Amino acid sequence: MIYVTRREVFSASHRLFNPQLTDEQTDKLFGKCNNPNGHGHNYILEVIVAGEINPDTGYLIDLKLLKKIIIDNVISKVDHKNLNMDVQFLSGKIPTAENIAIAIWNELDGKIPDGRLYSVKLYETENNYVEYRG
Amino acid sequence: MIYVTRREVFSASHRLFNPQLTDEQTDKLFGKCNNPNGHGHNYILEVIVAGEINPDTGYLIDLKLLKKIIIDNVISKVDHKNLNMDVQFLSGKIPTAENIAIAIWNELDGKIPDGRLYSVKLYETENNYVEYRG
Amino acid sequence: MIYVTRREVFSASHRLFNPQLTDEQTDKLFGKCNNPNGHGHNYILEVIVAGEINPDTGYLIDLKLLKKIIIDNVISKVDHKNLNMDVQFLSGKIPTAENIAIAIWNELDGKIPDGRLYSVKLYETENNYVEYRG
Amino acid sequence: MIYVTRREVFSASHRLFNPQLTDEQTDKLFGKCNNPNGHGHNYILEVIVAGEINPDTGYLIDLKLLKKIIIDNVISKVDHKNLNMDVQFLSGKIPTAENIAIAIWNELDGKIPDGRLYSVKLYETENNYVEYRG
Amino acid sequence: MIYVTRREVFSASHRLFNPQLTDEQTDKLFGKCNNPNGHGHNYILEVIVAGEINPDTGYLIDLKLLKKIIIDNVISKVDHKNLNMDVQFLSGKIPTAENIAIAIWNELDGKIPDGRLYSVKLYETENNYVEYRG
Amino acid sequence: MIYVTRREVFSASHRLFNPQLTDEQTDKLFGKCNNPNGHGHNYILEVIVAGEINPDTGYLIDLKLLKKIIIDNVISKVDHKNLNMDVQFLSGKIPTAENIAIAIWNELDGKIPDGRLYSVKLYETENNYVEYRG
Repeated sequence: MIYVTRREVFSASHRLFNPQLTDEQTDKLFGKCNNPNGHGHNYILEVIVAGEINPDTGYLIDLKLLKKIIIDNVISKVDHKNLNMDVQFLSGKIPTAENIAIAIWNELDGKIPDGRLYSVKLYETENNYVEYRG
Repeated sequence: MIYVTRREVFSASHRLFNPQLTDEQTDKLFGKCNNPNGHGHNYILEVIVAGEINPDTGYLIDLKLLKKIIIDNVISKVDHKNLNMDVQFLSGKIPTAENIAIAIWNELDGKIPDGRLYSVKLYETENNYVEYRG
Repeated sequence: MIYVTRREVFSASHRLFNPQLTDEQTDKLFGKCNNPNGHGHNYILEVIVAGEINPDTGYLIDLKLLKKIIIDNVISKVDHKNLNMDVQFLSGKIPTAENIAIAIWNELDGKIPDGRLYSVKLYETENNYVEYRG
Repeated sequence: MIYVTRREVFSASHRLFNPQLTDEQTDKLFGKCNNPNGHGHNYILEVIVAGEINPDTGYLIDLKLLKKIIIDNVISKVDHKNLNMDVQFLSGKIPTAENIAIAIWNELDGKIPDGRLYSVKLYETENNYVEYRG
Repeated sequence: MIYVTRREVFSASHRLFNPQLTDEQTDKLFGKCNNPNGHGHNYILEVIVAGEINPDTGYLIDLKLLKKIIIDNVISKVDHKNLNMDVQFLSGKIPTAENIAIAIWNELDGKIPDGRLYSVKLYETENNYVEYRG
Repeated sequence: MIYVTRREVFSASHRLFNPQLTDEQTDKLFGKCNNPNGHGHNYILEVIVAGEINPDTGYLIDLKLLKKIIIDNVISKVDHKNLNMDVQFLSGKIPTAENIAIAIWNELDGKIPDGRLYSVKLYETENNYVEYRG
């Protein structure tokens, strides 16, 4: 079993709030992340695939192919976007790093032809990141 | 002469466009940076002060003080904000990295008690940064 | 199950030795790390919490809260300190990265209100780091 | 159980191809990585050892010793080398990151005196890395 | 005057030697960098342009354009190449970081439409880099 | 004119204070940096040499030689040391980053055989660094 990681980056804006919470709850939970006009991040995404090496190629998966799958299914939909308004696969979700990571997992799941999706890591800032393993 | 640098970060959103340009010009110049709902970045700001060392302290400038000046005058106004709508010192400016760096210089200029402001560096992504030296 | 990481840094000094070992053993084991007047590091601490997302917030745990817990229980006690002399929770321990990581785990264990403590990672230099998972 | 990581770097060249594949297959699979005169990378190697802390030293394993084992068994054989032509332990293998990581595992396996080899991570570029856990 | 930097990376192999030197001189000067089958690096290239901001765009130079100029004139010629054998603009030169940086400057000089080429920085490893300012 | 940089790291402890200041001044100026038992950092040192390329070698200066000069004159004296007590070239100086950088310059000045010493950069933390150019 080997693990292969591809890293991609995207720049996006978001606002964290839940319309069903009171103003006081919102303030306490989301604070400055609830700025009505939004803020943004350079997100770093790492997609990890697990599996066996193909002896003909020495690859678990061709990284050019993995890159294309990530760009087509994720980066093209979130890069230079507003995560609250512009991204169908996040519609109706609070775009926290946790929710974005799970939604990215769901976008990629079933689309990796060699090996299986093992982990999605998402760095929101240099001090905060999340990981989801399905 | 010695140079002392303090690094701070902030997360903000922006949209790049000029209402006086045609749609075609806008598309060509700003492309995906002109997403109407905005996008965002983790900006890294480096403020460089130049001057002489104070022999009593071994400091050019106390970095706790430099940090406080940068936070009071810049970070508190741009962190978790929309740079087009929420920041008075960027009002009426296209918030490119170039314009933000110059506006930050102007916010800091004259407020450094020891040494003189030498340079403002602003990293917008891991691949793009600008520097302004007044 | 999702994993959320908060990164904090602290600067501290230490000296590695065990008074019960002979000088020769000490030299062989600790070498220059046993400088009598000590040396120091910028430590990077990553605290990883595992659990379920709260659907009301989209958070596993509010990172502002996790940051506060780490600062109150760890960073405030070790930052700008001598790890041999100034830190009660390291008293009587050889302050290797391994022992510091375990001691930090013990300081945090039981204090995370949402999710459970999953891992403590501690980077001592750019080439050395340790991880403890309880 | 604690995990201790040592990081080392090496600079090497390689060419990815399999003489048993057709030209068309080679082009599709290896593309520019099959440049006949080769290309190269600064590889970052992380070796992770798992085990118990020795109470006399506070170490799982003395990192000076782990460093020496990695340099003697791996770095001295691959640094400033051509991975297709100069490295006996890669002979007959396509030098993909996957195959290099497994071959490094095999070079280190059985040579760690304290703890057991847990993982070999190999970063080929800032966007691609692999991990092997035996 | 403002300075705008674009960062690109490329992976290449090389061998350092001068056929006009004796073996002894070669050994002393180039050591392991003279491995006959070559070695390689992930090079990081930073291209810095200096000039005035265009008030219509807020740009010194459109970074999409600067990126295209760097890729067309440099990256496409050196990425995944052998710098001794495959690169016309390095023909007959010892491909040290110093010589590569100057050759890249010459490839870019006169091709920047807005502002002027100010500096070429080239990182060969995490410990070695060079800068050329014309 | 080309600039060549060599980066080295060292780990050291220090305490910032001036015995000629009152306790109140000391508290205000040095705060937690004046912990009586000291604290420490992983310092990153960059030494930049400027000059002309030697056409026989393609080097401004052989980096193996520059590395040796830095290690013999600086790193061997400060790594794993207490900067207040163990380092002759810092004796009687407050070991601020500013003073350390200038002292390192003085240790290296006149010892670079090819090119001339251009700059000493010293990173004390990821947020603070200084530069001295003589």
